[in-house]
Amino acid sequence: MSKIEVGILGATGMVGQHFIKFLDGHPLFKTAWLGASERSAGKPYNKAAKWHLGGVTPEAVAGLTVEEAKPGNAPKLLFSAMDASVATEIEQAFAAAGHIVVSNSKNHRMDEDVPLLVPEINADHLKLIPGQRETRGWKGAIATNPNCSTVVLTMGLAPLRQFGITRVVVTTMQAVSGAGYPGVPSMDILGNVVPHIGGEEEKMQQETQKIMGDFVDGRVLPLAAKVSAHCNRVAVIDGHLVTISVELAAKPTEADIRHAFDTFRAIPQERNLPSAPKFPVQYMPEADRPQPRKDVERERGMAAFIGRLRPCPVFDWKFVALGHNTVRGAAGAAVLNAELMQSEGLLD
Amino acid sequence: MSKIEVGILGATGMVGQHFIKFLDGHPLFKTAWLGASERSAGKPYNKAAKWHLGGVTPEAVAGLTVEEAKPGNAPKLLFSAMDASVATEIEQAFAAAGHIVVSNSKNHRMDEDVPLLVPEINADHLKLIPGQRETRGWKGAIATNPNCSTVVLTMGLAPLRQFGITRVVVTTMQAVSGAGYPGVPSMDILGNVVPHIGGEEEKMQQETQKIMGDFVDGRVLPLAAKVSAHCNRVAVIDGHLVTISVELAAKPTEADIRHAFDTFRAIPQERNLPSAPKFPVQYMPEADRPQPRKDVERERGMAAFIGRLRPCPVFDWKFVALGHNTVRGAAGAAVLNAELMQSEGLLD
Amino acid sequence: MSKIEVGILGATGMVGQHFIKFLDGHPLFKTAWLGASERSAGKPYNKAAKWHLGGVTPEAVAGLTVEEAKPGNAPKLLFSAMDASVATEIEQAFAAAGHIVVSNSKNHRMDEDVPLLVPEINADHLKLIPGQRETRGWKGAIATNPNCSTVVLTMGLAPLRQFGITRVVVTTMQAVSGAGYPGVPSMDILGNVVPHIGGEEEKMQQETQKIMGDFVDGRVLPLAAKVSAHCNRVAVIDGHLVTISVELAAKPTEADIRHAFDTFRAIPQERNLPSAPKFPVQYMPEADRPQPRKDVERERGMAAFIGRLRPCPVFDWKFVALGHNTVRGAAGAAVLNAELMQSEGLLD
Amino acid sequence: MSKIEVGILGATGMVGQHFIKFLDGHPLFKTAWLGASERSAGKPYNKAAKWHLGGVTPEAVAGLTVEEAKPGNAPKLLFSAMDASVATEIEQAFAAAGHIVVSNSKNHRMDEDVPLLVPEINADHLKLIPGQRETRGWKGAIATNPNCSTVVLTMGLAPLRQFGITRVVVTTMQAVSGAGYPGVPSMDILGNVVPHIGGEEEKMQQETQKIMGDFVDGRVLPLAAKVSAHCNRVAVIDGHLVTISVELAAKPTEADIRHAFDTFRAIPQERNLPSAPKFPVQYMPEADRPQPRKDVERERGMAAFIGRLRPCPVFDWKFVALGHNTVRGAAGAAVLNAELMQSEGLLD
Repeated sequence: MSKIEVGILGATGMVGQHFIKFLDGHPLFKTAWLGASERSAGKPYNKAAKWHLGGVTPEAVAGLTVEEAKPGNAPKLLFSAMDASVATEIEQAFAAAGHIVVSNSKNHRMDEDVPLLVPEINADHLKLIPGQRETRGWKGAIATNPNCSTVVLTMGLAPLRQFGITRVVVTTMQAVSGAGYPGVPSMDILGNVVPHIGGEEEKMQQETQKIMGDFVDGRVLPLAAKVSAHCNRVAVIDGHLVTISVELAAKPTEADIRHAFDTFRAIPQERNLPSAPKFPVQYMPEADRPQPRKDVERERGMAAFIGRLRPCPVFDWKFVALGHNTVRGAAGAAVLNAELMQSEGLLD
Repeated sequence: MSKIEVGILGATGMVGQHFIKFLDGHPLFKTAWLGASERSAGKPYNKAAKWHLGGVTPEAVAGLTVEEAKPGNAPKLLFSAMDASVATEIEQAFAAAGHIVVSNSKNHRMDEDVPLLVPEINADHLKLIPGQRETRGWKGAIATNPNCSTVVLTMGLAPLRQFGITRVVVTTMQAVSGAGYPGVPSMDILGNVVPHIGGEEEKMQQETQKIMGDFVDGRVLPLAAKVSAHCNRVAVIDGHLVTISVELAAKPTEADIRHAFDTFRAIPQERNLPSAPKFPVQYMPEADRPQPRKDVERERGMAAFIGRLRPCPVFDWKFVALGHNTVRGAAGAAVLNAELMQSEGLLD
Repeated sequence: MSKIEVGILGATGMVGQHFIKFLDGHPLFKTAWLGASERSAGKPYNKAAKWHLGGVTPEAVAGLTVEEAKPGNAPKLLFSAMDASVATEIEQAFAAAGHIVVSNSKNHRMDEDVPLLVPEINADHLKLIPGQRETRGWKGAIATNPNCSTVVLTMGLAPLRQFGITRVVVTTMQAVSGAGYPGVPSMDILGNVVPHIGGEEEKMQQETQKIMGDFVDGRVLPLAAKVSAHCNRVAVIDGHLVTISVELAAKPTEADIRHAFDTFRAIPQERNLPSAPKFPVQYMPEADRPQPRKDVERERGMAAFIGRLRPCPVFDWKFVALGHNTVRGAAGAAVLNAELMQSEGLLD
Repeated sequence: MSKIEVGILGATGMVGQHFIKFLDGHPLFKTAWLGASERSAGKPYNKAAKWHLGGVTPEAVAGLTVEEAKPGNAPKLLFSAMDASVATEIEQAFAAAGHIVVSNSKNHRMDEDVPLLVPEINADHLKLIPGQRETRGWKGAIATNPNCSTVVLTMGLAPLRQFGITRVVVTTMQAVSGAGYPGVPSMDILGNVVPHIGGEEEKMQQETQKIMGDFVDGRVLPLAAKVSAHCNRVAVIDGHLVTISVELAAKPTEADIRHAFDTFRAIPQERNLPSAPKFPVQYMPEADRPQPRKDVERERGMAAFIGRLRPCPVFDWKFVALGHNTVRGAAGAAVLNAELMQSEGLLD
């Protein structure tokens, strides 16, 4: 089978580069089209963009000519790494023109008719798409993945949903790669912690409720749980680590919870989607793990790592969770979304 | 007035060095005696100990001869920086011999008859000392300061005690200097976070309840509030930053809480103790402060800096707090305790 | 004596903030005027500029109204922290209008009639100013200080000039604060070294020859020594550390060189200028010093620290040197230049 | 073909773990025996040693029982990661017992009859082994690889040997992983540079001369070039970056040198040894590369990356070089040595 050609909107930015890197060698998709601003259009990619990730620009992409981010000769499936300042208009233009836009941008995440997907948690939210098409008159569609810190939290909570999540207090320690390039100035973060990331706490709180909500009668009912987030930037390159205190209605035992973590699997695993880790949530029994630098690259960055499950004097249980913010929290998340959509026939 | 001569137990370790540095130039106390292990005894200090802090060994101490940590010719007031593995026996020997041991070690903190002091919060816990002397048959006494992360939490909570603290969830991001020397290996912390500090969470939870407890009928009744701590090590040199979600019975408004922070003062301020900051708790209105590297050295490291007060979707309010772990959380805390005790006549 | 009022050109940038901080509490000068771009003009300083250094904006400056950087009501003495893109024109306009512009910008450093000063090395280069005024028709004048890495190198070499410096190979490990704000992206420097700083090597090579040159017949004859620089950025906040291999014609012994370092003093010390350290070059005998984080703040950042003097298998001797790039390499350097000029009567 | 079973001496230390990691999945060798101190003997590896590298202990090794590091049932080929304090005696005991000891320890590197190998540079130094066996009465043998910083320097210089290297000044910026575990305390290196690594400069200077020397009449004549090293520790996890100024007798042009770098290949490439990179020296044309964090993992850490070739005002040329200190500078170096020896029939 020949690979499906895909395009990247916003290909020259940091998230665009993460898409290029993650898709390099992908068994199903092949990067064939790069969209960016007018300024970059017409140049070969490696002239239009300085490569900010490790190593050098993948060969298969280095020579591709960048095009302007307008519908025309782009492939049907597009990954969007557009900056929020321009994503709304551009993504809608492509969806209207019949493209499937799988977006990492925040702009449409909270739209009632747009799926905010974590395939292991809410694959059924894809059922929003027919309504989206009808309402908006689109032949194409937009699907989104969550904010990078939300993914870590929701994957850590997903196995516990069965116990009735009622309250969550979460503190994040987030990597600088989450802020793009040039992103966080070194003068601000070397030997430091910055206890503020603009808009991040609101995103984590709202997106979590939507992601973990039920699809009922054509729409998503947000999870009723209360969620409070404290977001911080730390001097880490890749990997968001979060501490979680959670109240659970069913009062499970430690063994119940460990069993839930250890056995958690979902549709991406059942369908053996190419980017799905065999075990999406992996519990580490070591006393001081997971740790960003030591664990973030495991499972190609697609699993969430959990550790330190212990009773919480305030709520029921507390633990830590780690996820790769630019992979599972961005490019990899969107690619897994596209794999899920492909498995549903939505790319046909 | 000539200065009061003081000694340091465990003078060659990292905490001992922090005592030497903090006492350098102190208006009331003068370091005149250095106690350490047999191995160091008899050597001038700058031969016995490599200086690990910034700059070089203060001149007034560099040439002092280190003595073995045994009662004998030590001054009455001793600051203890002894390692926990030996502190119990040595501190008790000195107290029995009539010395006032103001200790940073954890060994006696939770003893029922030993004050665990934060002078701005529980100066009245010094009333435990008469009972301590009676029970133990000591002429001297032991008083302690809290664990470095506990100080930050309790100073952040102190102004809110009036509103009825019932539940607290706290996550720490702690500096490496808290682990002494050699302490945290660089291979573990560079570009990383370690979500575990042995015994720290238990200390924070228990010590907070004791510190904020009331002295009633000769003993301390622990605060009934539930406290849950998540402790993490980050790549910061000095300064523990904590995020706090707090439930308050009296349901104060934001203005009530800001007023409580801004006006908080206590006995050390009233008595103008030399190491007491004019305002022990300082609220920073900037969106992204306090930050360890930018704020930790302000007020000579003796104040707690607060920021980001905002409603908490789970409890009532959330905010961040910062304190200098080796100053307000160790050497400076003990020195302030001694200043308080001196002002009470306990050193006479 | 009332203080001399001074102004800062480019007051809202990072270097401008270093000037404000260094001048806070200065015994001779008082910041009374702040010049910046049209965009900032008319605002109080703490509204016009976010404070990027430790702590908060000094009180005495926070409320000063920023003015446009044009001659008019500015004081006679101006410190320039202008960006290189605009410094040429603005500094010249002020000099033409009669101001003494003591500049940290690179624009005029290599002009034949502009002194490039390190007061301990070439105070006599101030003799260029009469010629500068005559040639350019100025009532005022421009004097400059070197690039931050050049200062460290030249102060390390200054005591050795008597031995006939013929060849120098220097490698720098430079702090991120040298690049201003936002400056070096954290994605580029966390856990990394960047072996390139645009234009830095050329500056070090040329400026060193000019600074260490002799003033003869109205002009400066550059030092004939060959200098080769390798410049690198490292994950350090403040302090440039350099390794130096040097060939010396007179073949001094180790004792000769140590004596030269230990006894080095010059005009700023003789005149007891307020910002001059008692010993501008300080040799540290410890095996592993100086180190940026541990030594950079000593002597208020105004001394150069030297260490590890040892024979070089290729040239005669090798050693390391450290200096504070934003103090001795920028704001402090310019202030010391102004103090020197004041002592010469050039501000009258 | 079944794999050759190999053992690791000093398997529980940091270098031992690097061997285990590098050999995991090796096409020719299989880790079948683990030797360590008496204290660890008898335990399964994952109980005897905490895993300090990224991820978790490779499955194939986790359950192997550690044995005492004494000849007996060990395989013929042994990789030695023994600590220098015990390596001499243990390695010699194994060589005497007929084992081929391919050592990363420094103890035998400078012995006249022991090859100090960089297979791309001096494969012919293996000819020392017959003499070694005769002199020492061994059936086995010892071969060594250089110190981690020496490898980077010599691979950077190797292509230039044809031009007559006469003088070299090199400054290193070395990663903390080179110091093992716990190694460099975080208090010493966070936001800092340490301009001293005990014994490192002498090793670089001497080893370089031996490695690049000619094998003549049964012994190695050291290269006559003068080499001066300045060694520094920086806050980098993996990858030693060095700056090099080099004097070349033949006065090649820039094009000559670029050609030399670009075409450099040697015996490991000719024989297609499994761990040999296709191009052992790779020139990067970007202005600011190579960089440790961005380039060190390329080519599985087995190539040296070169950049910034430019004229040197003091010598002829200057450039930077980067190599992976725990791979090409330790475990990978030894494994490549063993592959070379296998290709020579020395393991039969």
